[in-house]
Amino acid sequence: MKFSSKVQKCGLSPMRKFHPYAVAAKAAGKRVYHLNIGQPDIETPPQYFEAVRGFSQPVLEYAPSPGLPVLIDAIQKYYDGLSMHFEKDEILITTGGSEALQIVLNCILDDGDEIIIPEPFYPNYNTMVSTCGASIHPISTSPEEGYHYADRARIEGAINGRTRAIMCTNPGNPTGAVLTPEEMRMMVDIAKEHNLFIIGDEAYREFVYAGEPLQSLGEFADAAENVVVIDTVSKRFSACGARIGCIISRNRELMAHAMKYCQARLSVATLDQIASAALYSVGPEYFAAVREEYKRRRDTVVTKLKEIPGVICSCPRGAFYLMAALPVDDADAFQQWLLTDFDDNGDTVMFAPGGSFYATPGKGVNEIRIAYVLRQRDLERAMDLLAKGIAAYNSR
Amino acid sequence: MKFSSKVQKCGLSPMRKFHPYAVAAKAAGKRVYHLNIGQPDIETPPQYFEAVRGFSQPVLEYAPSPGLPVLIDAIQKYYDGLSMHFEKDEILITTGGSEALQIVLNCILDDGDEIIIPEPFYPNYNTMVSTCGASIHPISTSPEEGYHYADRARIEGAINGRTRAIMCTNPGNPTGAVLTPEEMRMMVDIAKEHNLFIIGDEAYREFVYAGEPLQSLGEFADAAENVVVIDTVSKRFSACGARIGCIISRNRELMAHAMKYCQARLSVATLDQIASAALYSVGPEYFAAVREEYKRRRDTVVTKLKEIPGVICSCPRGAFYLMAALPVDDADAFQQWLLTDFDDNGDTVMFAPGGSFYATPGKGVNEIRIAYVLRQRDLERAMDLLAKGIAAYNSR
Repeated sequence: MKFSSKVQKCGLSPMRKFHPYAVAAKAAGKRVYHLNIGQPDIETPPQYFEAVRGFSQPVLEYAPSPGLPVLIDAIQKYYDGLSMHFEKDEILITTGGSEALQIVLNCILDDGDEIIIPEPFYPNYNTMVSTCGASIHPISTSPEEGYHYADRARIEGAINGRTRAIMCTNPGNPTGAVLTPEEMRMMVDIAKEHNLFIIGDEAYREFVYAGEPLQSLGEFADAAENVVVIDTVSKRFSACGARIGCIISRNRELMAHAMKYCQARLSVATLDQIASAALYSVGPEYFAAVREEYKRRRDTVVTKLKEIPGVICSCPRGAFYLMAALPVDDADAFQQWLLTDFDDNGDTVMFAPGGSFYATPGKGVNEIRIAYVLRQRDLERAMDLLAKGIAAYNSR
Repeated sequence: MKFSSKVQKCGLSPMRKFHPYAVAAKAAGKRVYHLNIGQPDIETPPQYFEAVRGFSQPVLEYAPSPGLPVLIDAIQKYYDGLSMHFEKDEILITTGGSEALQIVLNCILDDGDEIIIPEPFYPNYNTMVSTCGASIHPISTSPEEGYHYADRARIEGAINGRTRAIMCTNPGNPTGAVLTPEEMRMMVDIAKEHNLFIIGDEAYREFVYAGEPLQSLGEFADAAENVVVIDTVSKRFSACGARIGCIISRNRELMAHAMKYCQARLSVATLDQIASAALYSVGPEYFAAVREEYKRRRDTVVTKLKEIPGVICSCPRGAFYLMAALPVDDADAFQQWLLTDFDDNGDTVMFAPGGSFYATPGKGVNEIRIAYVLRQRDLERAMDLLAKGIAAYNSR
């Protein structure tokens, strides 16, 4: 049987590569501290479950293809609160930020096209872009310079005749890098000058730790044709399992094309839309508390990491991830060894090896991504395990 | 800005074309009887809402990418009950049957490839196939022969070097045609002999009205490499808004490729999966009652249609749709006229004009699809309106 040439170019998720080893380690009685996945442990606001329980229609009907009005209204108001106004038809509800991104990429990328993405980047971008027949043109960054990518010369140097878009994951997964307002302006200007889309994957917007106002590429109303914002309730409200996201853009032609995909898949889950609308009634005190909690976790991880000889890392300004370079030859081999050959009083630790976050072959081999989604005490123990693991691994 | 050549070839849903006219008719005080959409009015079993209300975990987490084990188990048991056994990893949970179909088509179709689909067919197939860069090779059928397509010579005559798959929507939307066991065997044999996938879109499996056993292409275990079943809870349990479906196949390579798409979109909504698993506890008396209700409706519609001079229609054996040829010049023009220029005591009627269900240009212009999803009395009135409308339209 023949398969699509596009899907054959894709791989399975690199985040899952060590899953069998983790299962075996647990079966052997080890406790594994998971820093490898971005599933927050923060409680989902009760408004979600109350709305779900309050649903009383007898038939669970299809929602309209562009989304339920109650949810579109809630999202519109949320952006109004951030001083960005979008019309209702500039918001399309999707099944998670993932579907939002896949639809947008499908609309703008053709076979042989390129999209500029700073590396390291969220590995699922690879599958999403490859299945369009396009490829990622990476902007390389390094741990030594804090993964900084907002450099006009570097970005313009990557633009060619096949370039269609620039992706900004801001705040960044996996690096936690946050653009300054000036850098955002510059990125948008580059997109305007070169007639490119600029896609803001802003899933982690609320997770910034220096007291700065919440940012979005949606602020740049002068770049209405260029800017596309990908949003989701997943991290904002710790509601990853709701699978509710949206595409936001003032580009009418893009939204008309995106609507074709929305209609072809009929609708997004009805109850999850109703419940997600209720999430937007959560007050600022919720975000303040969550932000404080993640900031403490970040500080713990960074403090402990900096105590480990040979580790290179910067203090991330946003999201709940960080990348670090370790004094090991190969983070993949080290991770596997941690699961198969190492323990400290029966404990070991798991992170995401860095190679799969890069498009450039050979980059990131000694780097890891840490998701600081555990409680304070567990994070401290996990960092101690990492330190002990590095020492033991290098003195084998 | 440039857009993908593939999305530019697609159109918006033809089912929505008359929506603005319906809105205007209602605003003018008319009552519109909707026979144009496949949204059942049957109540969703309470097990769905009970399961949703019983969810008590504090964090709404991502589900595993291939689906929640509780739902995969429920679907496995359902098929065991139909004497078809599938391993758990031969079932991938998706966001509705729509995502299941889109993923499968993405996995098997390349630019320039063809898929054989009998026409008239579900119009969303057009977008799903076109966005893969492939095209539909239609098997033409006609109202005069009851839209019968299972003809070896006709199907083999459509196979060429670019053919990758045959689609069987069984029971059929929009025709209500149901394959006999012998015809299913023949279709599967053709796929085997020509090394093609055969995709069974079996959303309406339970809706057969002659007391026959429930069918599936999944019965043909000897065609393990060829058969793909698309399934969904949407119509089976009147739970269209749950957006829960699945891909079922014994073809390991296909399932491995499909898993790449599943991982790239992370997961399917958690609560909807838990609640859909609960739906599978519904007993046979539920289906017997629903089947009886739709059978009554079908008989009402067919009886009334056959009384209208010049209408050609067969009694459909399954699903809750039928196609009919009307004695009008153009069903599109007739539909628009019914909304703008016609009423009988303030009432008018809406159906889906047939042209968009065909790939062959010019076919279906005098045909319509009727979804018999209204109560008995409303269906009778709607059929009277259709009869009066045809008479008035033709004597303008």
